[in-house]
Amino acid sequence: MIRRVLQGAAGLGRHRVLAGAHPILPRLHPASAFGSSTDTLVSRFCLEKTDLKDYALPNASWCPDMLSMYQEFLEKSKDSGWVKVPSFKSNRDHIKGLKFPFEIPASSDKSDWRIFPRCIPEEGLGYEYVIFFHPSTKKSVCLFQPGPYLEGAPGFAHGGSLATMIDETFSKIAYLAGEGLLTLSLNIKFKSLIPVGSLAVLNVDVEKIEDQKMYLSCITQSRDQKTVYAKSSAVFLQLQLEEESSQ
Amino acid sequence: MIRRVLQGAAGLGRHRVLAGAHPILPRLHPASAFGSSTDTLVSRFCLEKTDLKDYALPNASWCPDMLSMYQEFLEKSKDSGWVKVPSFKSNRDHIKGLKFPFEIPASSDKSDWRIFPRCIPEEGLGYEYVIFFHPSTKKSVCLFQPGPYLEGAPGFAHGGSLATMIDETFSKIAYLAGEGLLTLSLNIKFKSLIPVGSLAVLNVDVEKIEDQKMYLSCITQSRDQKTVYAKSSAVFLQLQLEEESSQ
Repeated sequence: MIRRVLQGAAGLGRHRVLAGAHPILPRLHPASAFGSSTDTLVSRFCLEKTDLKDYALPNASWCPDMLSMYQEFLEKSKDSGWVKVPSFKSNRDHIKGLKFPFEIPASSDKSDWRIFPRCIPEEGLGYEYVIFFHPSTKKSVCLFQPGPYLEGAPGFAHGGSLATMIDETFSKIAYLAGEGLLTLSLNIKFKSLIPVGSLAVLNVDVEKIEDQKMYLSCITQSRDQKTVYAKSSAVFLQLQLEEESSQ
Repeated sequence: MIRRVLQGAAGLGRHRVLAGAHPILPRLHPASAFGSSTDTLVSRFCLEKTDLKDYALPNASWCPDMLSMYQEFLEKSKDSGWVKVPSFKSNRDHIKGLKFPFEIPASSDKSDWRIFPRCIPEEGLGYEYVIFFHPSTKKSVCLFQPGPYLEGAPGFAHGGSLATMIDETFSKIAYLAGEGLLTLSLNIKFKSLIPVGSLAVLNVDVEKIEDQKMYLSCITQSRDQKTVYAKSSAVFLQLQLEEESSQ
């Protein structure tokens, strides 16, 4: 989701560069320590009460597998420590009150921004997905049902749509699990095609955190685990978002 | 774009498996030789006359960089061997008369399928892109302008939208350059964020073809090449599409 912006190589010399990482963005304020607990991040990010529309809710397009697995995890959220991650129209909503460590490009007259996996508002035609997160183990599950506007080969989800779903799940979990913000790399091995309209389950793990880098892995498979759709991994850079001033 | 479908491990034993590759799809007919020349593939794929709408044409949303680089390559298509690759609404249109080497899932009542990078029809809000291909060198250039519905971090393209653009360009070029159909792996190293509404240029090379595998690489950068957005690579499996019977 969130990656580094370099505003021209000429500008980089003036700014701090993290050891072991690529040259880093202008106006960067990397935290010297990552003090925010997972619980704090979760409670900030997964608002229980908000006027914002949550797109990660069941609708008539969900297939029976998606619905029943959603109910299963919703039950687990009552007594087993799982948390449903809300999904708003834009990351601008997710990070209200926080400031990105780089300059946001000047806005045009287009005020209608959408986070890419929510680019198609019609139910069932594009992305249907919901992410659950287990803070104490830092595990995550994303239920993903691709619609007919996500097609690649006839009848199957485009590889890019799965790459996007993996990237989006990684990025949300990287943030919640330890303020992972910037993807450094993403690797995907594709094993099988996902039929449009069916459920794919992404199981994400945080493998380790070292030198301000988070290593995540994901296996995407059918609900019965008999078909593996993809295996993937990513490295994220940890960066704290600043609190916005109240001016 | 096009990946393998495995319809349950139990079914795989009945089907042919390519040496050195993962178990392969049911009803697979891998060609023993890849006889179709690049010119044949290009002339079949890049129709000069068709009633199908080509989405890879300039519109009012294109930024000046995108427009002028498009004109530049259009000139090169007159005398330097470059070919503009058309972009239809669905791969079903691209492969008319050809048959995929696996079963297409039963169609629902949804007749409106779209290839993922053309999922947003409104000009300028989603993907704007055009791919050019140079058959004799097997090089390719994709001009990509992400719109505000492709957002990740506020004001910037979602990493998944770039992953999709890379995957889509790879898959078209893999097919045109040597009947590469199935992505085995995709690796991306992200370097910088792409501002929404700006031009990113993807330069794709076919590195080598060995044992029915195609190795492709891509560097994505600003027009002036001063900012590298991403470096990526992929491996595709070569598979010939069958001619459909005329029954």
